[in-house]
Parts: sequence; C-alpha cells; structure tokens
Amino acid sequence: MPVLLTKNRYGKSRVRLVKVERHGPRHNLKDLNIDIRLTGAFEASYTLGDNSSVVATDTMKNTVYALARQAPIGEIEEFGLRLASHFLSRNAHVIDARIAITESEWTRIHSNGLPHDHSFVQGAEKRTALIEQGIVTAGITGLVVLKTTRSAFEGYIHDEYTTLKETKDRLFGTAITAEWAYRDGKHEYGDLWRTVRQILLEVFAEHDSLGVQHTLHAMGESVLERVAEIEEIRISMPNRHCMLVDLAPFGMDNPNEVFVPTDEPHGIIEATLRRS
Amino acid sequence: MPVLLTKNRYGKSRVRLVKVERHGPRHNLKDLNIDIRLTGAFEASYTLGDNSSVVATDTMKNTVYALARQAPIGEIEEFGLRLASHFLSRNAHVIDARIAITESEWTRIHSNGLPHDHSFVQGAEKRTALIEQGIVTAGITGLVVLKTTRSAFEGYIHDEYTTLKETKDRLFGTAITAEWAYRDGKHEYGDLWRTVRQILLEVFAEHDSLGVQHTLHAMGESVLERVAEIEEIRISMPNRHCMLVDLAPFGMDNPNEVFVPTDEPHGIIEATLRRS
Amino acid sequence: MPVLLTKNRYGKSRVRLVKVERHGPRHNLKDLNIDIRLTGAFEASYTLGDNSSVVATDTMKNTVYALARQAPIGEIEEFGLRLASHFLSRNAHVIDARIAITESEWTRIHSNGLPHDHSFVQGAEKRTALIEQGIVTAGITGLVVLKTTRSAFEGYIHDEYTTLKETKDRLFGTAITAEWAYRDGKHEYGDLWRTVRQILLEVFAEHDSLGVQHTLHAMGESVLERVAEIEEIRISMPNRHCMLVDLAPFGMDNPNEVFVPTDEPHGIIEATLRRS
Amino acid sequence: MPVLLTKNRYGKSRVRLVKVERHGPRHNLKDLNIDIRLTGAFEASYTLGDNSSVVATDTMKNTVYALARQAPIGEIEEFGLRLASHFLSRNAHVIDARIAITESEWTRIHSNGLPHDHSFVQGAEKRTALIEQGIVTAGITGLVVLKTTRSAFEGYIHDEYTTLKETKDRLFGTAITAEWAYRDGKHEYGDLWRTVRQILLEVFAEHDSLGVQHTLHAMGESVLERVAEIEEIRISMPNRHCMLVDLAPFGMDNPNEVFVPTDEPHGIIEATLRRS
Repeated sequence: MPVLLTKNRYGKSRVRLVKVERHGPRHNLKDLNIDIRLTGAFEASYTLGDNSSVVATDTMKNTVYALARQAPIGEIEEFGLRLASHFLSRNAHVIDARIAITESEWTRIHSNGLPHDHSFVQGAEKRTALIEQGIVTAGITGLVVLKTTRSAFEGYIHDEYTTLKETKDRLFGTAITAEWAYRDGKHEYGDLWRTVRQILLEVFAEHDSLGVQHTLHAMGESVLERVAEIEEIRISMPNRHCMLVDLAPFGMDNPNEVFVPTDEPHGIIEATLRRS
Repeated sequence: MPVLLTKNRYGKSRVRLVKVERHGPRHNLKDLNIDIRLTGAFEASYTLGDNSSVVATDTMKNTVYALARQAPIGEIEEFGLRLASHFLSRNAHVIDARIAITESEWTRIHSNGLPHDHSFVQGAEKRTALIEQGIVTAGITGLVVLKTTRSAFEGYIHDEYTTLKETKDRLFGTAITAEWAYRDGKHEYGDLWRTVRQILLEVFAEHDSLGVQHTLHAMGESVLERVAEIEEIRISMPNRHCMLVDLAPFGMDNPNEVFVPTDEPHGIIEATLRRS
Repeated sequence: MPVLLTKNRYGKSRVRLVKVERHGPRHNLKDLNIDIRLTGAFEASYTLGDNSSVVATDTMKNTVYALARQAPIGEIEEFGLRLASHFLSRNAHVIDARIAITESEWTRIHSNGLPHDHSFVQGAEKRTALIEQGIVTAGITGLVVLKTTRSAFEGYIHDEYTTLKETKDRLFGTAITAEWAYRDGKHEYGDLWRTVRQILLEVFAEHDSLGVQHTLHAMGESVLERVAEIEEIRISMPNRHCMLVDLAPFGMDNPNEVFVPTDEPHGIIEATLRRS
Repeated sequence: MPVLLTKNRYGKSRVRLVKVERHGPRHNLKDLNIDIRLTGAFEASYTLGDNSSVVATDTMKNTVYALARQAPIGEIEEFGLRLASHFLSRNAHVIDARIAITESEWTRIHSNGLPHDHSFVQGAEKRTALIEQGIVTAGITGLVVLKTTRSAFEGYIHDEYTTLKETKDRLFGTAITAEWAYRDGKHEYGDLWRTVRQILLEVFAEHDSLGVQHTLHAMGESVLERVAEIEEIRISMPNRHCMLVDLAPFGMDNPNEVFVPTDEPHGIIEATLRRS
C-alpha cells in the first residue's frame, strides 16, 4: 500500500549546559536547556533504516558542548544562531535546524550588602529563544502575576448553562508566556528582553482590565508600540481563577477578601499580534 | 500604531468529568479531562474589552456537565463531536470549536477471580480524542515500552563531534504518543482504538529496528495498511536512552546486562504518515 | 557557642538501574530506582570538613552497578539486603545503611496472542522495598482505585463550620500507598507481594465502607490475618473527592451520575496496624 | 486475630487560601497552602466505622476560610497556631493538631520605578511553618543556589568501586530546605525568617567548602549562633552535580568551564543541629 511520509523531524531534547565564564574573581554563569530539531531529507532512515543521512542525536549533544567551549555563549539568541548555522552549513540535506533554548535566571547572592562574585540564587522565570527557519524569536515563561483589583468581567453571553456572576472587581492571576519575533538583523537581545519583560509587567499592573483578552491585547500592543525591533508577539495566559469563598453558611460576609485559588479547570487565552 | 490581531483563540482547560453509568448492579465508569478552544470573531473582546461575543469559559465548563447528563457519554470521539457541535450551532461567529479529550483507563478489579461490578483500578495509559475543524483524531499517550534486543543503530554520519559507538544490539525504550485522523463518517471508535493500540505494540515488539525512525515508520505504515478508516497518523517517540555502564574500572565486563536509563537528554523522533 | 550535631545522614538518591537477564531468547527485565542513606560516625565531615570517613556518594552509585553485575538481582528486598550488607560490613563506623528501592512494573507485550520474549510495556504501579535497621519492609505505591457505590460517610461531628451533607452512597477514589514489615527470616518476597496487592484490591472492592478510615483498617487487618509473615502494615490513603455536580441551575437532576474529581484539597488518612 | 491500631492520623491536605487585605488603595496579598492532621482517639472510626469522633476533613477546610475571615492572617506561624488551637480547644479527644503551611512569595511589581499598590509577581521560594505538639517550626524551601568556586571534595574513602576524582575546585549547586524550631514564646516571625534566609545565603556564598556536609554544618551553626530564638535547625541539601564535560575527544581542553548539570542521581545530605 502506498504510504506517504508527509512530515518528519528529529533531534535531541533537554541538553543541559552550565557554562562558567571566569573574569578574574568575578564569574558569570549561564544555565541553558537546549532542544534541537532537524528537518530535511531523512526519508531513507524512516523507510529503509538507512542512517547515512542521520546526524546522531548524541552528536548534537556533543556539538552543544564543543561550541560552548569555542567561544562565549553570548545571549541565547546568539548561541541558538551559532548552533543552527553549524548544522545547516555542514548538512546540505537539512532544510531547517530548529533550536529552542530555555535559560534559567540566576542572580548574584547579596552578601554583606554586595553582589557576590561567584555565588548565585535561582529565580522562578525562564528566558527562552527559538531559532526556526532563520527567524529569531525570544520569550519569557513562568512569569506568574496577580492583581487584586481593576479587573472586571461583564457583558458576556448568557445562556441556560451560564451561572457565572458578572463582576466589576475580581482577582486576576495568570502565568504569562510570551514569545516575540525580531525583524531581521542583529539586536541587543539582552536589553530588549529586559525591556519587553518590564512592559509586560507594567501593562498588566496598570491596565483597567475588562477581561483577560483585553489585558493580553494591551500588553502585546504596548510591546509592539514601544519596541521597534519586534515584528510579532504571541501571548498565552491562563486564567488562574481565584474563587470568592461563600462564607454565608457561617454567618459571615466576604467583602472580596477570602479566595480559593484553583489550578483546574482554568481559562486559557491566546493571541498573536503583528505590526501592520 | 496599527497593530493587527492575526490569531486568537480561547477556552477552558482541564475540565474534569467522572460519569458513572449504572445498569443495575454493574456500573460503568468514564473519567475524562476536557479542553475546549473557540476560534472566531472575538476581536472586540481583545481590542475593546467588549465581551458581547464571549462565551464565558465558566459556561463552557457547565456545558460539559449538562451534556454529560443529557445522554450517555459514548466514545470520547462522540462526546467531543457533541460538544463541538453544541458550540458551533449556537454561535454563528465561532468558526472552530476545538475539543481535546483525554480519557484515563480504568479496568475492573478482579475479586474472587471475577471482574468486579463497581470497583476499578487505574492504568498508566491515556486514550485521547481531538475534534478540530470537523476532523476526528484519536490517539494514545503514556504507552511506555522497551525492547531488550533486535534494535541496532549504525551507519550514521561521523564527524569530529561524534563519539557514539555503532551498535547492532542495544536497548530501545520509548513512550509512544500517536494520533490518527479518521476519514469522514461514523466509526466504531472503541474497537478501532484497541486495534491501533495492539498494532503499535506488536510492530514495536516484532520489528528488527535499524533506528527509532525505522521502527516508528513501520508502526505507522502498519496502522495505515491494516485500518482502512484511518487517513493519517502522527507518531512521536522519545529515545529514552539506556546507557551501558562501564564496569571495566571494577575489573568486570558488561555483556549488555547492566544499564543506566536516563530521562535527559533524550532523542525525539516525529513523523506523519498519510495514505496516498 | 556549643552546637550539637544531633542527627546526620547522607547518601545517593535516584540511582537508576536497568538489568536485562538473558536466558536464551527469553529476557527478563528489572527496572529499579535506588536510594541509599548512611548513618554513622560522620561528624568530622560536618564539623571539620574531614572526609576520611566518607564513602563518596559517587562510589555508592558505582557499587549499585557492580553488585548488579555480580549476581542476579533477585527480588528487590534481596538486592536491598545485599546493598545494606555491603556498606555495613566494610564500614565499621556506619551504624545503618538504609536502602529504599522502587521497581517499575513491566509486563510482556502480547504479540500474536503470546507474551513476547523481549518486549515489554510499563504499568502504573510501583513496587517498593525498604531495608532499615535490619528490618525488611515491602510496599506498593501508585495503586489508584475507585468504587462507585457501597461507600457512605455519616455520623461525623457537626459544628458551625460543617456544610458537608451526610451520604449513604458516594464515590470513593484513592491512591493506595502501603508498606508492610516482614518478621525476621527469608521469605518468598515476590509471591507475598502479589498476595498483599490482591488482598488490598479485594478488600477495597468488597468492603461496605463507612468511611476511608473504616476501609483502610479492614484492608490492613485482612493483610495481617491472611499473611503470617507480616508483622506490621502502614497504609496511607488520600480521599480523592468526586463532587456531585449541581445541575439544578440547568433544570436537571443528578442521580449520582455526574461528578467532578478533584486533586485539591484532598483528605488524607494514615494508620499503622500491628499483629498483637 | 488480635490486631492493634498502633498509630493513626488524618486530615486535609492542599487547602489553598488567598487573602487580600485592603488598606485603602494599597493591598496586601497572602497566598497559603495548608495541611491539617489530627491525632487522637479516633479508633472507633477505623475499627467500627463509627464517625462520631470525626471532624470531617471538609469541615477542616471550611474552618480555614472562616478563621481567615475573622482576623488578619498575620505571619503564617501565627495563623498555624490559631488553627491548631481551634481544633484542640473544641475536641478533647484530639491530642495533636499538626498544621503545616506553605506560603508563596509574592513581591510587588515595579511600575514607573515604584512598587505597585495591587499588582504582584511570584518568586521561586516558599516560606513554610509547622505547628506540631505545640512547637513552632519555620522553614524555607525552593532556595536554589550555586557557587562556581571555593568548593572542594577530597580525602574520602577509596575502595575498588571508587572512580570519582578528588578536586579542589568544583561547582556546588543545591536546593536548600531548612526548618528551624523556635523556643517557647512569641517571636517576630517575619523578621526572623528573613534573617535566617540571609544567613543561609551568606554562609553558602562565603564558606570555603570542603564538602556539602561541611557547608551545611556551617550554615546551621551560624543560624544558631546569630539567632537566639532558635533551638534547633534541620537542613537538607541535595548535591546537584555539575559534571565537567570531557572535551578531549574533540581536541579541546575544559578548564572548569563547561558542565552538564544533572538531576539524577544526586547526593543528599541531611543534618539536625541543636543548641547545647
């Protein structure tokens, strides 16, 4: 029976790398988790078990460590570009080398009031980069935020299965995941990342929210307005509901004070905004 | 600045449902986790905070429970179709209702040698269904398998970063995730699911593997050959490496007996096969 | 300032081992996760950084692999005893070598109706063993069960914060964790483990439950009554609540059919039973 | 057969509570996860299914919300004491009410350079409190740290299974979990917690480590020396190994720069220090 292999890709996931850059007593620390996927003319490995076109995933892993040694990591977007370029330039049959990198955030421990030279504490957020088909995308994940007022949700459709009460004042908690694609050319990826992170946080904080969609759009729009290097931004935000507890059975009111936060079920809102 | 909202969707995730169907003393149990996403003309909710087109995600959750009460769940593909149809038929502005369902596998406890009427034990695998743009896709996840021989990996590219030894006999462990799309029309989804599961397991067991790609392709091809109702199958298989332990420092050989299984890094192989 | 080091122990966690035992074409598979803790005269390593009494945790890991090669694994209780004995016999300053082993359950894939010689599929449950101060404890974890009737909960204390309705018929879902200590001497650990597992399941299924405590006690009592080799059993069972959905707002009744299972919050019931 | 119920306890886990305290425009946020266990004369519920002594775990959950409404939460140690006292004072048959609380860390978003009144971002660490048998224990978990030098490991036992190389300079990464018991009396729990956290970080950063044991002891000793209110401290630190990558096969050296961090296997070091 004729069967078509319509898509294929393969690679190595969860390649972990810590690099210490030692400039005298002051050390820098990079902590990356790297995911590589190659797409190309690999059909024979699938249909015939002919591996002559296959870059072993173990070799991919080794390549990460060798390239990490050869030069400074730089920003993760830059390291991703080096890796993609390595696989593409050596393998004419590879049409895309997709490199996804997640960087853990480490900040210096403060000791005696000063940032320490070689000791670090890890934060909750992750910085991400994706190189795919030559496009550089940066991102953030694990940015968990909550605002305790200036969030409403009203005017939605009511049908026979609607029991949710409209509200002018609810808690709004979410875990922001955002990814933004840069226009062609080199950029100051580190500075831009910190700028976008701050915009996302400020708009979340300052916005008079009429719904998660509304705030998500305001966040994305503000990033595009204020950072000319960015072409497109995708944002995904779960709505981590905080339910007001009904204290009436205990003879108590609950003036928007006591809530049960829940992980499931949760709303999920996604959108892509593009510079027109 | 003109900003385009190029894509958007939203919905409710992790809606959990247990339904007990009581036929005299013998009970049936369905345990589902449901994820709903609507795509359509929701722009005003993003740009203006105008929610008049928004089906509240809380209403989506309620709808799941109401529809579960109105009629038997049936197969998860059928329940997914009912849910999709509900949202599409009532909301002209919704262009797709994507419904993803994960079903936990429960089997009857055997007591005194007989399957019990109302007591169940949970297995490791999950059955999945996806309704998207009218196409019904079924799947399996959490099917963790390992074979201890008849798996080779040779003949791949060697460059200066290649250290992996070629082998004619290695362990091959993976966690199969597969999804297959049915052609139009009603099908015996439960029977077909069990048939596909068995084909995947048998081909994995019997295949003389020259690589993960090779076995993955044989599994997909066999499903398409033997199940006429299926148009396309996507399979994703991590390569959960079992590394042979070097016992030479202790004066011991290791004739393919003692291994360290590792979760990271891991290879990952993906492909889509289609009936031509 | 005088500070006392009142307790200390250290070791290696998550040492993973797969051993394949090849008896002609038919292979056996053991998949273990091992955790080692030594207690003893290690004070100088804490107070002075004097490591002369320290068995490096890397050496512990190597020892696992070397001992796995030297002889068949046998039952995990036996392998645990060999490991404990190794560390105790060589290190007079070690007063306890606590060995905890978790074994993943693999069953043979059935192909063409027969159990396959060298291909396996993983189940959900884990078998555990613990060697501590010479006592052999076996256990099970991940045994997730649910019964759809013959479970009541009535007659508990009512105070001003009680809103739970009494019920003669609820769902009862839990994830059984049990550990049982054997009396001194060698035992048929594999057979006994399967016997205990089956007793736990049967009593869960057959018991007319008046509460989680009640069923837990019946399960433990039955194990002690029917397995003379066991001195003591500890059982821990979360109460994974399935909440009846209120469908009245939609004009529907809910005759114990449609439930929301929840992971949090959950009840948790623990007890230890001992042969008197 | 006579069976003794030698130990029992039960309760509610993962009771989640968010409380917003609104002081004009400036809001405070408390985000707690609470675990309650009662020990006492509950035998009849186990042996007979007689629940007349049972406080339903659902009532425990309601009690958390009611007490949260009645008064400010205060420090989690104080809220834990209120909860314990509630259950003990009303139930003469309860001999201990163990309350464990985990608090998520939220800090104010900075917007326009100022801490925002009602918007927060979540950190990685958790503050913990435990009330058990009248003793107040505070703690921290999720404090992940790494130092890139001034960590050695030498002079340990060498036997035939030892392959680890001695080193004067390695990376030292861990996730600190610490719990400290206060002497009787009221304390400034918030200030003390921040003081202990800072001591743990500073000693980790400044210590010339001869081993994980050595640094752990120095950390605990320093806490006892500098905080008179603390009687005892328990610290648990995994050794999250960063392995130097062997780049020699690629013709490269690796002067302590490129590492693979690993989660498994990992060392684990535990100790309890007490004021003498």
